[in-house]
Amino acid sequence: MSVTAPKGFRAAGVAAGLKPSGRPDVALVVNDGPSDAAAGVFTRNRIQAAPVLWTRQALADGRLRAVVLNSGGANACTGPAGFADTHATAEHVAAGLGLGAGDVAVCSTGLIGVRLPMDTLLAGVTRAVADLAGTGGDDAAEAIRTTDTVAKTAVRSSTTTPGVTVGAMGKGAAMLAPSLATMLVVVTTDAVADAATLDRAVRQASRVTFERVDSDGCLSTNDTVLLLASGASGVTLPEAELTGLVAEVCDDLAQQMLGDAEGSTKTIAITVTGAASESDALEVGRSVARNNLLKCALYGKDPNWGRVLAAVGTTQAAFEPDQLDVSMNGVQVCRAGAPGEDRDLVDLSDRRIDILVDLHAGAEELTVWTNDLTDGYVYENSAYST
Amino acid sequence: MSVTAPKGFRAAGVAAGLKPSGRPDVALVVNDGPSDAAAGVFTRNRIQAAPVLWTRQALADGRLRAVVLNSGGANACTGPAGFADTHATAEHVAAGLGLGAGDVAVCSTGLIGVRLPMDTLLAGVTRAVADLAGTGGDDAAEAIRTTDTVAKTAVRSSTTTPGVTVGAMGKGAAMLAPSLATMLVVVTTDAVADAATLDRAVRQASRVTFERVDSDGCLSTNDTVLLLASGASGVTLPEAELTGLVAEVCDDLAQQMLGDAEGSTKTIAITVTGAASESDALEVGRSVARNNLLKCALYGKDPNWGRVLAAVGTTQAAFEPDQLDVSMNGVQVCRAGAPGEDRDLVDLSDRRIDILVDLHAGAEELTVWTNDLTDGYVYENSAYST
Repeated sequence: MSVTAPKGFRAAGVAAGLKPSGRPDVALVVNDGPSDAAAGVFTRNRIQAAPVLWTRQALADGRLRAVVLNSGGANACTGPAGFADTHATAEHVAAGLGLGAGDVAVCSTGLIGVRLPMDTLLAGVTRAVADLAGTGGDDAAEAIRTTDTVAKTAVRSSTTTPGVTVGAMGKGAAMLAPSLATMLVVVTTDAVADAATLDRAVRQASRVTFERVDSDGCLSTNDTVLLLASGASGVTLPEAELTGLVAEVCDDLAQQMLGDAEGSTKTIAITVTGAASESDALEVGRSVARNNLLKCALYGKDPNWGRVLAAVGTTQAAFEPDQLDVSMNGVQVCRAGAPGEDRDLVDLSDRRIDILVDLHAGAEELTVWTNDLTDGYVYENSAYST
Repeated sequence: MSVTAPKGFRAAGVAAGLKPSGRPDVALVVNDGPSDAAAGVFTRNRIQAAPVLWTRQALADGRLRAVVLNSGGANACTGPAGFADTHATAEHVAAGLGLGAGDVAVCSTGLIGVRLPMDTLLAGVTRAVADLAGTGGDDAAEAIRTTDTVAKTAVRSSTTTPGVTVGAMGKGAAMLAPSLATMLVVVTTDAVADAATLDRAVRQASRVTFERVDSDGCLSTNDTVLLLASGASGVTLPEAELTGLVAEVCDDLAQQMLGDAEGSTKTIAITVTGAASESDALEVGRSVARNNLLKCALYGKDPNWGRVLAAVGTTQAAFEPDQLDVSMNGVQVCRAGAPGEDRDLVDLSDRRIDILVDLHAGAEELTVWTNDLTDGYVYENSAYST
């Protein structure tokens, strides 16, 4: 049910013709209220796509009534004309729904640097408005796919208050990013919550999920995570519970993205423990997650722990080189910066790989997630636009 | 002639048996003087291999009489025992040549985290000492290859003072690094120069050559560049000329490394112009050079300039997004942050690709070099240790 699992939401997904394949490419999510509180987080890339610039403005008042999303074109690096296209898209949705354009968020994904075919897009938006339904969440999730091989949705219900629900859809199998992993995510809830609460919830949830996924180190120009509350349940959850539910659906989507990352054969959990600070642990985890040589080795089922240490050594985190321990799938292959147990004991045949790096410099611990680097990744990304 | 092109040097390269292939794997370079002035630069990785730790100490007095190098094992992440192995290697060279161990630099390259078979190595060193010859430079260059498909050497002679020469050998087709690209380089000269002059020369030469090559973003634990002066010509060159000659051989080696980078099909020059500072230009160039998505696109001959902008946007350099220009092989595909000339005009069929990024924020300009990301790279690095 995706984003329409919570009460108060309708959605649709249609094939407008933006994708040469003819697959669905325009999604619409509408919040019928009674509340229209919303919040979001966006890419930290300084090159921000037109829909990101637009949606940041639209969210400034903490309110959103609708989100229109398209695949088949990112509308990034398209200049003032591209921004005007986004504005026109929002106006078209607003006209169809009887809203103001400032109530409409816009998200786009696809190739950078190409204008969208606006006639095609707007015709699709018209059809999406007509198709809106309280059961349309799955269609919407389908329409935001690019190279994703499957649609990605997640739903959680409150355990303390039956009938209060959080739903989500996401896309992202490429450009999973160092500081905000997801291309596009829309999270909905029928809980009652004000914009400030939603803002804290979406930031915290992203911080511990999407921001700890780094599939290929490349930060997108379009990354957007939106959280919309309809308040249709009439229930205000404790903030910690709401935040927890949002984090759960975000974590679920993040794991789906890792499982579907372009060309990947491995999902790799890099747990950094014994760190002096959370930022140290994150820096070390990301450095390991971005090391192409390690990612190739893991693709080849090679427990090349030396490449882990080489990646740790490029960071500014607190540690002493002769105190580092590294385990792979439970085998401590590196002890005190030197060879430990026999590397041949490590079995890397499963998709899931666990790497544990102990810095022996403090008490902080976290996990950063990545994928292996494969010829399939190279193929998908060398042929993507052609 | 490599490192023995300048007067006052002998060298050798032998097959000790460290490599399963049976190819040459131990090299020795000896400076017969009269001077023994030397300088070096090393990896900035905090995880430094035993030979790097040793050679930094040996160079502390600005003097070196010999450099012993082995392929077939990096002796990195090997703990105190690995350091003792490096020490023993230096002692063995010193005993064979009648020197102190502190006069002997040691360099190693190969797999990380594995001890060297010392009996095999020391027997090879003994044979290398016996084989030393004034014509041995090419043999030495051959013996430091790992996945390099060809040996890499360069020689330049002074144009102002005939008979004064700089020679060099290098290896490095993998782990070309963000802050010091080369695995191992030895540069020799028969000019008269003190250690302080050599130190300035090798730092400046590295800064504008190896430190601007970033083949795969992975910083090695073993990177070493050494510069030895025999003074055998009796001539003291102007410092600027000496530095220029050293930079020329370093640039020559860097280009050979780029041309031989693992699995690469493209050598990519990323020129950043209009930067507010050299550090801004370098940050932008490296960010573009490390973008896996762009590197895949260029492998696929796809002029995906949006990925260039996405990489620029992750930096802290001074620029305005709506003022960025990007050209690819002379076609200005991005103007003022938006589409410029038709991307289909860009011909990416040659090995060499030139990308020009104009930040319009100042007057600084420099070029960072990288390679494409290919299935060949993935193959070589997923199978390297197996």
